[in-house]
Amino acid sequence: MRLNEFGAREAAARIAKGELSSEDLVRACLARIAEREPSVHAFAHVATEAALAAARDADTALLLGDGPFGPLHGVPVAIKDIIETADMPTQYNSRLYRGFRPAQDAACVSILRSAGAVLIGKTETIEFAAHGRNPVTLNPHDLKRTPGGSSSGSAAAVADMMVPLSLGTQTGGSVIRPAAFCGVFGMKPTWGTVNGEGAKLFSLSLDTIGWYARTIDDVALLAGLYEVSSEQHPVPASLNLAWCATPYWDRAVPEMQTAFHATLERLHAAGASLTELRMDEAFSTVNDLKERVMRAEGRVAFLHLHHRSPDKLSSGIRKRMGRTDDRLLRQALDAAAMLRIAFDRMAEPFDAVLTPAVTGVAPEGLAYAGDPIFNGMWTLLHVPCLSLPVMSGEQGLPIGLQLVGPRFSDARVIAAARRIMQLLG
Amino acid sequence: MRLNEFGAREAAARIAKGELSSEDLVRACLARIAEREPSVHAFAHVATEAALAAARDADTALLLGDGPFGPLHGVPVAIKDIIETADMPTQYNSRLYRGFRPAQDAACVSILRSAGAVLIGKTETIEFAAHGRNPVTLNPHDLKRTPGGSSSGSAAAVADMMVPLSLGTQTGGSVIRPAAFCGVFGMKPTWGTVNGEGAKLFSLSLDTIGWYARTIDDVALLAGLYEVSSEQHPVPASLNLAWCATPYWDRAVPEMQTAFHATLERLHAAGASLTELRMDEAFSTVNDLKERVMRAEGRVAFLHLHHRSPDKLSSGIRKRMGRTDDRLLRQALDAAAMLRIAFDRMAEPFDAVLTPAVTGVAPEGLAYAGDPIFNGMWTLLHVPCLSLPVMSGEQGLPIGLQLVGPRFSDARVIAAARRIMQLLG
Repeated sequence: MRLNEFGAREAAARIAKGELSSEDLVRACLARIAEREPSVHAFAHVATEAALAAARDADTALLLGDGPFGPLHGVPVAIKDIIETADMPTQYNSRLYRGFRPAQDAACVSILRSAGAVLIGKTETIEFAAHGRNPVTLNPHDLKRTPGGSSSGSAAAVADMMVPLSLGTQTGGSVIRPAAFCGVFGMKPTWGTVNGEGAKLFSLSLDTIGWYARTIDDVALLAGLYEVSSEQHPVPASLNLAWCATPYWDRAVPEMQTAFHATLERLHAAGASLTELRMDEAFSTVNDLKERVMRAEGRVAFLHLHHRSPDKLSSGIRKRMGRTDDRLLRQALDAAAMLRIAFDRMAEPFDAVLTPAVTGVAPEGLAYAGDPIFNGMWTLLHVPCLSLPVMSGEQGLPIGLQLVGPRFSDARVIAAARRIMQLLG
Repeated sequence: MRLNEFGAREAAARIAKGELSSEDLVRACLARIAEREPSVHAFAHVATEAALAAARDADTALLLGDGPFGPLHGVPVAIKDIIETADMPTQYNSRLYRGFRPAQDAACVSILRSAGAVLIGKTETIEFAAHGRNPVTLNPHDLKRTPGGSSSGSAAAVADMMVPLSLGTQTGGSVIRPAAFCGVFGMKPTWGTVNGEGAKLFSLSLDTIGWYARTIDDVALLAGLYEVSSEQHPVPASLNLAWCATPYWDRAVPEMQTAFHATLERLHAAGASLTELRMDEAFSTVNDLKERVMRAEGRVAFLHLHHRSPDKLSSGIRKRMGRTDDRLLRQALDAAAMLRIAFDRMAEPFDAVLTPAVTGVAPEGLAYAGDPIFNGMWTLLHVPCLSLPVMSGEQGLPIGLQLVGPRFSDARVIAAARRIMQLLG
C-alpha cells in the first residue's frame, strides 16, 4: 500500500506512534495530485508549501512531546471550494470571487484544523454549489465521465487516492451523488448537526455539510469529530434492515435496479432481515417540495450577489432570481415537516433503510452531473444519508448503495453500514 | 428638526433631490455620536473617516449624474457587531475576535451597501448575541437602565438619534426586546426571508436578521429592500385585529398589562375590530420548546470555538456546551412545526395580532437585559414580529406593542402597523 492510499484513521495512528511522518504522507498525496491532476482536475487550488509546512509543524510537535492535537494529527484533507479557508483562496467557481481570500476558516474547517488536520487544497465545485458553471473535474474511474456534482472535486480526490478525506456540501444531491459515481463513501448527516457557517448558503432548510472517505472507519471518525450523534451504537450482530424504492424507482436504469436487488439478495442470504418500506401517497410529490423550497430559498441566498454584480452570476443562477409565491413556500415547508415525522416513524424500527443513491452509473461528458432524484427527497427529510461503494453497473463503473434512517440516527446508520460492509465482504 | 433626526426615507429623498448632502447628514450623525457616546456606549466601533469618505462618494456620484444607487443613497446605517463588515472590525464582544477584520460584508450588509447606504459603525452586543459578556450600552431614556439585548447598541443608536437605521439579529428576543425598551420600531421578519450569511450563527432554526428605525416608513423601506414579502398590502381602512395574551401573560407587570389593555381600548374606540386569540394547551410549553432548540443548536454553533479556544469563551457559553439529547431536540422541532401551522391558521383572518413585546419597562442596571418571554415563542413560530413604540410604563419609560402575523405576512403586518400608528396619532 502506498502512503497516499492510507485511510485517515490508519495514517493518524501511524503518525501518533511515530511510524510515519506527516510530511512523508503529505508528500505522497502531493505527488499523487501532481501525477493525476492533469487528467482528473479535482482541485481549484493546491496549497503545496502551506501543507508541507503544516505537516512539518505536526511532526515537530510530536517530536517535542506535544500532541497529537486530535484524531487527524498530520492527516491531509481537502475542502470543497465553497467553504471558507483562512489560508487558501475560496472561489466558489464564480467570476465574482476570483482570488478571494476569507479572513477565517469556516466552522467545519476550523474543527478539522483543531483536530490536527493538514489542509492540502480546495476542490472543484459547480458554481456556488448551485447552478451555472460546471467544474472541470473528471471521474477517476472513466475520464470521459462526470464525477457527479456539486462536490465534484472532493469526491474525485478521495476516489483517486489524492487525499483520504474531504468535505463537501449537499442541498439536493451534492454529496451522495458524487460518492455513488466515484465509488467512495459519502456521508450527509442529519440537517443542523454540523455548523454550516462559512459555507456558501444556498437553501437554509436543505444545506448540509458532508464528507468523503475510502473506509467506513473514516466516515465514523468525522461523524465523531463533529459530534453528530448523542448516542453510541454498537455494530449490530444481526441486521434488521428495510429497503425503500421511493416514488422515483422508475427513473433508475435497469442495471441499477438489478444491482440494487442483487445486493438485497446478498444481504438476505448473509442473514439480514429485509422489510420493504412503501411510501404512501403523501410522499408522491416529495421531490417537487424540495424543488420549491430550493428555488424560493435560493433566491434569498443569492439576492445580495444579484444586487452587487448580476453580470458576474451565471445565467443558471440569474434565471432563478424571479420572485416565488410565499404561500407555496409555506405549504412546502409544512408538508416537508409532516413528511419528516411520517418517515421517521416508518424508519424507526430498523437499523437502516436501503435505497438507491443514483439512477445509474455516471453519465458521459461534463454537461450533466447526473440525476439527483434519489437524493433531494432525503435532503428535504433532513435524514442522515450514507453512500456505500458496493455496487457496479455498466462497464463495472461504481454505483453507490444509499443508507438512510430517521433524523439524528446518524450513529445507528453508520453502525449498520459497518455490518453491511462486513457481510458484503 | 436637526439633520441627525431625519428618517432614512426622508433623508434619502432630500439627498436624491440635492437638498441635502450625504456628508452633512453623516457629519450630523457623527456629531451626535460624539456628543452622546460617552453616556450611551452604543458603538463598538465608529468608522468616522470611512463614513465621511463614503458620504462624499455618494455626493460626488449624484453631482456627476450617477445614482442614486438605491433607496438608501447617502444614508448612514449602523450594524450589530456580530454581522461581518469588510471595512470595519467585527468583534462579537468576544475575546476570541478582538480586532478581527472579515474579508467581505455579510449578505444583509452587502444589500445595504448596494442600495447606497453609508456604514457608520458597529454596535454593541451581548457576546456572540448569545450568552456571556454583556454590552456596556445604556438606555437613552434612562442611563441607569439596560437598553435590552442582545442588539443593545443598534436599538440605542436609533433611539438616541445617532443613526436612522440599524441592523440587529434575533434568536430569542434580541431585536424586539431592545426596540420595546428603547422606544423605537423593531422588526424581525419571517424566518428565512433575509440571508443570514455572515452573521454569527447561534440557532439555525431561530436566528433571524432584523432592523430598527424611528418611523414605520423606514421599517417598510428595509422590508422592501430585502424583498421579504411576495405580496403588496395596502394600508387597511378598517382594521381587523386580534390580540393574544400568550400563555405567559402573568409574567407581565401590572403597568404593562394596563397599558396593553388601554391601547386595545383606544384602537377599539378608533374603530378597529378586536378579537381575542386564545392559545390552546398545545401552546402551553412553546417557550420550553424554544429553549430546547436554542440549547441544542447553540452547541453546534459554538463547537468549533470551543475546540479552538475554550478559555476565551465566556462561562455563559461554555456551560451550554454539554451534549443534549437528540430525541428531545427532534420532538421540539416537530412540535414547533405543528404549532407554526396551528398559529398561522388562527392568525390568518386578521390584519395582525397584538401581543406584549416585553413584561414591562427596561430593568435597571446592565446585569440583566430583561425577560424575553414574549419574544422567543414568536421566534420559534418563525412569524414576523414588529414592535411599535406606542406605550409607556413606570416613569414614562417606553414599552413596545408587538404585532405578529402568520409566516410570510410581513407586508400585511407592516400595513396594519401603518394604520395603527395613524389611529393612535
